[in-house]
Amino acid sequence: MISTDKFSDDKLDAIYETIFKRRDVRKFRPADLPDEVLYRLIKAAHHAPSVGFMQPWNFLVVRDTDTRRRVKESFASANKAAFDMLEGERKDKYSKLKLEGIMESSLNICFTCDPTRSGPFVLGRTTIPETDVYSVCCAVENFWLAARAEGLGAGWVSILDNEKLKEILEIPAHVVPVAYLCVGVPEEFYAEPELQTAGWRERLPMEDLIYHEKWGRSGG
Amino acid sequence: MISTDKFSDDKLDAIYETIFKRRDVRKFRPADLPDEVLYRLIKAAHHAPSVGFMQPWNFLVVRDTDTRRRVKESFASANKAAFDMLEGERKDKYSKLKLEGIMESSLNICFTCDPTRSGPFVLGRTTIPETDVYSVCCAVENFWLAARAEGLGAGWVSILDNEKLKEILEIPAHVVPVAYLCVGVPEEFYAEPELQTAGWRERLPMEDLIYHEKWGRSGG
Repeated sequence: MISTDKFSDDKLDAIYETIFKRRDVRKFRPADLPDEVLYRLIKAAHHAPSVGFMQPWNFLVVRDTDTRRRVKESFASANKAAFDMLEGERKDKYSKLKLEGIMESSLNICFTCDPTRSGPFVLGRTTIPETDVYSVCCAVENFWLAARAEGLGAGWVSILDNEKLKEILEIPAHVVPVAYLCVGVPEEFYAEPELQTAGWRERLPMEDLIYHEKWGRSGG
Repeated sequence: MISTDKFSDDKLDAIYETIFKRRDVRKFRPADLPDEVLYRLIKAAHHAPSVGFMQPWNFLVVRDTDTRRRVKESFASANKAAFDMLEGERKDKYSKLKLEGIMESSLNICFTCDPTRSGPFVLGRTTIPETDVYSVCCAVENFWLAARAEGLGAGWVSILDNEKLKEILEIPAHVVPVAYLCVGVPEEFYAEPELQTAGWRERLPMEDLIYHEKWGRSGG
């Protein structure tokens, strides 16, 4: 054993199981998601790493049907534009994919980033300012993994016009919407990512993605 | 119980424990980190969500001392520039913080993003192109959580010049270095984030960060 701080095998297995079984969920069963459970997931998100302990995130919870409908309209318009870029078999496949569960999920949640959160000097953010948004992405992943362990699904809707989203949710000009998730009880958790099952794209061999010492040098 | 797919309480506790006990580690004990363990962490990263199942990441593992020294020089220069921005008590506090473990850790790993990974059309990335980099951030968080469960520490060094880093690691022009982590056996896992313990910044009250239906509306 390299480290004395290693978790027990049972716990370690649970972490890996959660990571491997997490899915982007787009099909939900009707269910109310109580704040008590939701706040456990948000607490997980709030314990993500953040540059300079900046915690630049907000969590904007949307349950209202009219608001969701407006977001769905933004999706539909952006999705139509994406569809129009495709041809032939790809277009056909794309049209068969369900890509969001905005209306059917228990709730939607928008993760935002406020670049002004801790004043002009943020420790660790002086050379790579995007690290504020990167922190929010880590928060999203914490939320997503906690949701999976709770038996809840989350789906990231990225086919949206962020300017439109800011207008709908009344997000201030300087705040960045980073992720818009649909959250709820999934119809099921698929064994593999849906895009893999649908034949859209394969998982890449991990070994091909690892380099040693310099870019492009594979092998040990 | 809302969902039948909920993990057992023991497993669920393990997930939350990992999330709450993860730390940004900068002080390491001398130790070799075998590829066998490292690859478990990379496998966790490789199972992160990615826009359109794009998997835009590469994992560039650095053990070589000379390479690390060059990266450390880039850090030192960027850190000096940050230090020079501060005055008074903040400057004094900043100077006492150890912000990286580039040389002392078992290895360094650079997570990159290749925006060209799956051709010109990436499903879900047609309106928000930054989602490729967001995917890599999720991979970083998976790696970090798996490391914590394995008893290993990771520290994200963001005080770096990315152009210099690309030169040192021979990363192609079109590829984005997203995160540079130091990984190894920590001297210890602190109970709270180091920046909190050092009095740099407090954890924000979670309730203040949650809004309902529209930006700025707190309460249930």
